Amino acid sequence: MNKFLEAGRRVIETQPFVRSLGLELTDAGAGFTAFRAPITPAMMQHLDFVHGGVILSVADTAMSFAGGTVLGNRVVTSELKVNFVRPAQGQSLVSRASVVASGKRQAVVRCEVFTVQNDLETLVALAQGTIVAASEG
Amino acid sequence: MNKFLEAGRRVIETQPFVRSLGLELTDAGAGFTAFRAPITPAMMQHLDFVHGGVILSVADTAMSFAGGTVLGNRVVTSELKVNFVRPAQGQSLVSRASVVASGKRQAVVRCEVFTVQNDLETLVALAQGTIVAASEG
Amino acid sequence: MNKFLEAGRRVIETQPFVRSLGLELTDAGAGFTAFRAPITPAMMQHLDFVHGGVILSVADTAMSFAGGTVLGNRVVTSELKVNFVRPAQGQSLVSRASVVASGKRQAVVRCEVFTVQNDLETLVALAQGTIVAASEG
Amino acid sequence: MNKFLEAGRRVIETQPFVRSLGLELTDAGAGFTAFRAPITPAMMQHLDFVHGGVILSVADTAMSFAGGTVLGNRVVTSELKVNFVRPAQGQSLVSRASVVASGKRQAVVRCEVFTVQNDLETLVALAQGTIVAASEG
Repeated sequence: MNKFLEAGRRVIETQPFVRSLGLELTDAGAGFTAFRAPITPAMMQHLDFVHGGVILSVADTAMSFAGGTVLGNRVVTSELKVNFVRPAQGQSLVSRASVVASGKRQAVVRCEVFTVQNDLETLVALAQGTIVAASEG
Repeated sequence: MNKFLEAGRRVIETQPFVRSLGLELTDAGAGFTAFRAPITPAMMQHLDFVHGGVILSVADTAMSFAGGTVLGNRVVTSELKVNFVRPAQGQSLVSRASVVASGKRQAVVRCEVFTVQNDLETLVALAQGTIVAASEG
Repeated sequence: MNKFLEAGRRVIETQPFVRSLGLELTDAGAGFTAFRAPITPAMMQHLDFVHGGVILSVADTAMSFAGGTVLGNRVVTSELKVNFVRPAQGQSLVSRASVVASGKRQAVVRCEVFTVQNDLETLVALAQGTIVAASEG
Repeated sequence: MNKFLEAGRRVIETQPFVRSLGLELTDAGAGFTAFRAPITPAMMQHLDFVHGGVILSVADTAMSFAGGTVLGNRVVTSELKVNFVRPAQGQSLVSRASVVASGKRQAVVRCEVFTVQNDLETLVALAQGTIVAASEG
């Protein structure tokens, strides 16, 4: 297990909200992360799709951890923007985030969120945002 | 209780994720909503602030319901953007969303999210986005 | 003329692009600005509305100057998001921007852009973004 | 010259603002476009970088034309978000946009903007947004 995976998984241990979503860090490297979570009934909204808040949380988590791989573990999301492109249904959610540009204090990150059904991935959301070192004023 | 509150609360009954966050619709009218949720240990991240995903979910919920007051209850979030302006700590989260412009199929909505501690509100996030009628292609 | 107006107008003198749009700083204070520009044939796109790039430029200018009133004149836009709510037609464009939250190095700003026809203002776009002190890494 | 290039160039002929920026459509296909413009003194701001409004305009143009390749030529930008990642200096600006997801009435598009100096490209901005068929309400 590489050091990014190890460090990320240690952080997740201390994040009750991420754990409540069942999010698992499946891959990580310098500037990228991948997360996966099973889709459960608790994630749904009234039209029987995964709630937008879950998608946003899954994106935010992948993006902040991707930022953390280049900025260190004390990072927070400064801002992000998400486009939802399809209703989310399936067995699992997968999010992948990559740092596109970074400096000492901040990283600009892109992310895609997919649903997975029988190993077939379907893109459900796209995100772009800024992750900053936590002391950022 | 006005019809917007009644309709909104009926929708929330069918949304497990929103209920799991403890979100209560405290006010609603044509083009606006207000939600409140107690801050619980389950909402936290590793720096002991409320997780960004919770803030995003609270914003998304207020915005989609505000859109729903002008577009009908079958709405989804098309896209949104959030700026986090302060770490979120306190007793409760409050979100208020207002429709700024709307047509037949979509509404542009703004939202503010606050933490509340001893009745004092502190702004923690600002959002702007688009809510669409659910058949939107 | 207050010091914010004076300082802002001096900066505009050194910005060929802002001057080419005919943008005039009509009001400024601690945390806010207002700009106005006549709508000219050179601003148009193919459907006879003002080009989105002009609206974006007018928003970006008001936002960065509003950020400058609290951060100093060496500021740049870090990121912004714009929703276009109506096609833009009329005699003039007006943009107003306000700082919603700020720290030492960055300010989160909101902005509205209007068209004006016979003194009647029509909202055409909404923006939200982050202005940073220019040394921001 | 393919039909997308031909159609796009005909539209540009009718867009004074795009022509005033010197923007040339250098490539186009189903779901993507590339534009190029020489950087001129008229594009500058006060810190001797290309003005953010120019970058935004170059991004918006590439994105709306990319949307047009899948939705038809009567499209408008509904919303977009841009992160500026580096000050823009050089000989030319290049923007490339790709449709990531599309339906009958709207397309979600991503874009990158680069400066070019002696054939070396430097990423200066990233964008993500929604292009809609012009009748969109």
